[in-house]
Amino acid sequence: MRYRIDGLQYANWSEKVFRQMREGGVDAVHVTIAYHENFRETVLNIEAWNRWFERFDDLIFHGQWAEDVEKARETGRTAIFFGFQNPSPIEDDIGLVEVLHKLGARFMQLSYNNQSLLATGCYEAEDPGITRMGKQVIKEMNRVGMVIDMSHSSDRSTLEAIELSQRPIAITHANPHRWAPALRNKKDDVIRALGESGGMLGFSLYPHHLKGKSDCSLESFCQMIADTAEMVGPDRLGIGSDLCQDQPDSVVEWMRSGRWTKEVDFGEGSAAAPGFPPMPQWFRDNRDFGNLEAGLLQVGFDRDEVDGILGMNWHRFFAQSFGPAG
Amino acid sequence: MRYRIDGLQYANWSEKVFRQMREGGVDAVHVTIAYHENFRETVLNIEAWNRWFERFDDLIFHGQWAEDVEKARETGRTAIFFGFQNPSPIEDDIGLVEVLHKLGARFMQLSYNNQSLLATGCYEAEDPGITRMGKQVIKEMNRVGMVIDMSHSSDRSTLEAIELSQRPIAITHANPHRWAPALRNKKDDVIRALGESGGMLGFSLYPHHLKGKSDCSLESFCQMIADTAEMVGPDRLGIGSDLCQDQPDSVVEWMRSGRWTKEVDFGEGSAAAPGFPPMPQWFRDNRDFGNLEAGLLQVGFDRDEVDGILGMNWHRFFAQSFGPAG
Repeated sequence: MRYRIDGLQYANWSEKVFRQMREGGVDAVHVTIAYHENFRETVLNIEAWNRWFERFDDLIFHGQWAEDVEKARETGRTAIFFGFQNPSPIEDDIGLVEVLHKLGARFMQLSYNNQSLLATGCYEAEDPGITRMGKQVIKEMNRVGMVIDMSHSSDRSTLEAIELSQRPIAITHANPHRWAPALRNKKDDVIRALGESGGMLGFSLYPHHLKGKSDCSLESFCQMIADTAEMVGPDRLGIGSDLCQDQPDSVVEWMRSGRWTKEVDFGEGSAAAPGFPPMPQWFRDNRDFGNLEAGLLQVGFDRDEVDGILGMNWHRFFAQSFGPAG
Repeated sequence: MRYRIDGLQYANWSEKVFRQMREGGVDAVHVTIAYHENFRETVLNIEAWNRWFERFDDLIFHGQWAEDVEKARETGRTAIFFGFQNPSPIEDDIGLVEVLHKLGARFMQLSYNNQSLLATGCYEAEDPGITRMGKQVIKEMNRVGMVIDMSHSSDRSTLEAIELSQRPIAITHANPHRWAPALRNKKDDVIRALGESGGMLGFSLYPHHLKGKSDCSLESFCQMIADTAEMVGPDRLGIGSDLCQDQPDSVVEWMRSGRWTKEVDFGEGSAAAPGFPPMPQWFRDNRDFGNLEAGLLQVGFDRDEVDGILGMNWHRFFAQSFGPAG
């Protein structure tokens, strides 16, 4: 079997996007349903997804377990798995971890770009590591089966999360810092610790994470994956495209500035280029997973390795991560 | 098989109560988790239950489906099913029906004693019937598999709910009005319409619903059940004990007055007797289902009918009610 799974998207969801998932043969997508939302606001986002599931039930459905990826393939649909880019949905209430897991949340970042109640974001000047509440929440996420995602966290917090977590964690969308030195990309020691602990790294197609940004070549992207496989083996790797298709620039501003500042934070952008940069021409949207497949074969991965990176590794990780601790 | 199921309890939950459920051989209980709580407060109550499920996992677990009654029997525990006595947990947001069903809610009263956004309570002077939102929510509850419970609603609203609902509804805890003419008890036309539509009536042991209140005899109670079986057959009947064990009087005050009045509403009590009346001596708590069994056999029910009334009828109803509309 060759399941195709994308480890992170945050599109401006529409029938068009869902149809493109089907065109691209994408069996499952981890979608972001909260950036800065509190619990009640997150529930409103779940309600909006429930309406999409009702309306487009021939294209998508709510994925909760690894077996839903298989069900997606069998029924010709895409399974949508929920995740948060910030722990704001649990507010200061550890009991909300189980409640939100029941509602389908399967990934939660312990921080976005800033300090959270749990961990430190990659844009902070100081990283004091995992907080008191963070340690408790890691245990609770381990217990119920919610994946710790450190994509936007800084190094010390990430290394401590890997160490503290009894179950493998994920960095759903980031690339190696030595290939593209964005603040969001990950240093080699983090990638090695992640791989050794059985965690997963999803490679990002967001231009600010790419070498050469929008002009990055498919070959350079795939060679970077090959180089990472040299470090941690091909089984720890997946795609987390970070596709933000059809979003207006106001949404990138919400992602970056939420409600935490009255000033504009440009994040990985700048005053001169505040919006979403164009995607590389070889990965416009869900229809272009075939290009990644060709590119990965081209740089020397074998068929099984390519299948692993394009979905089977996430599928295995889903199977070991989403249920209660054994 | 002889499953024992109680169609409604609201005890001051404790290890003692859970152990008494086991002593009484009670396989499943529908418990009230909200009277006047809004959505966020209801979630806090679910969190409290989650802690009990963790702490007493040798005695109880969260029941979601009819098969969980079977699992309860197999594992020697009691399955706890959630319900609301008021629609306050969905606020004015129909999307919360599906969200709360996902969190385990399986019964919701369309009103408590007062007018709600959906229907009219039995203490109102006028009953204009099911509201515009009520009609929408009935459809949504039918779709996801949440049972409409009209225990505290008034007659017209109840008859309209029976008519509007595409799936059988329940009156989880009430008795015939002609036997004990409390405002909360149900007129014959309501009981007949309920039975003819495939709905369930759970008989209440709350003294204010009994003929002679706390002094009601087991024989009178069981004969009342036999008389009701004459009207609608024995398959539509169960127990909904309304057991409010170990609750302080402040809780009965909360049930009745919530936040809707600054005055004291005595509900079924009075200024002279504002608290919980003592239970009849033959049904003190979960340990006394055996007395009901003996009493029902005594008034002439056969073995299968007694098993039906003490649990199998609820089990069948759970199986046809809790999943999505077929």
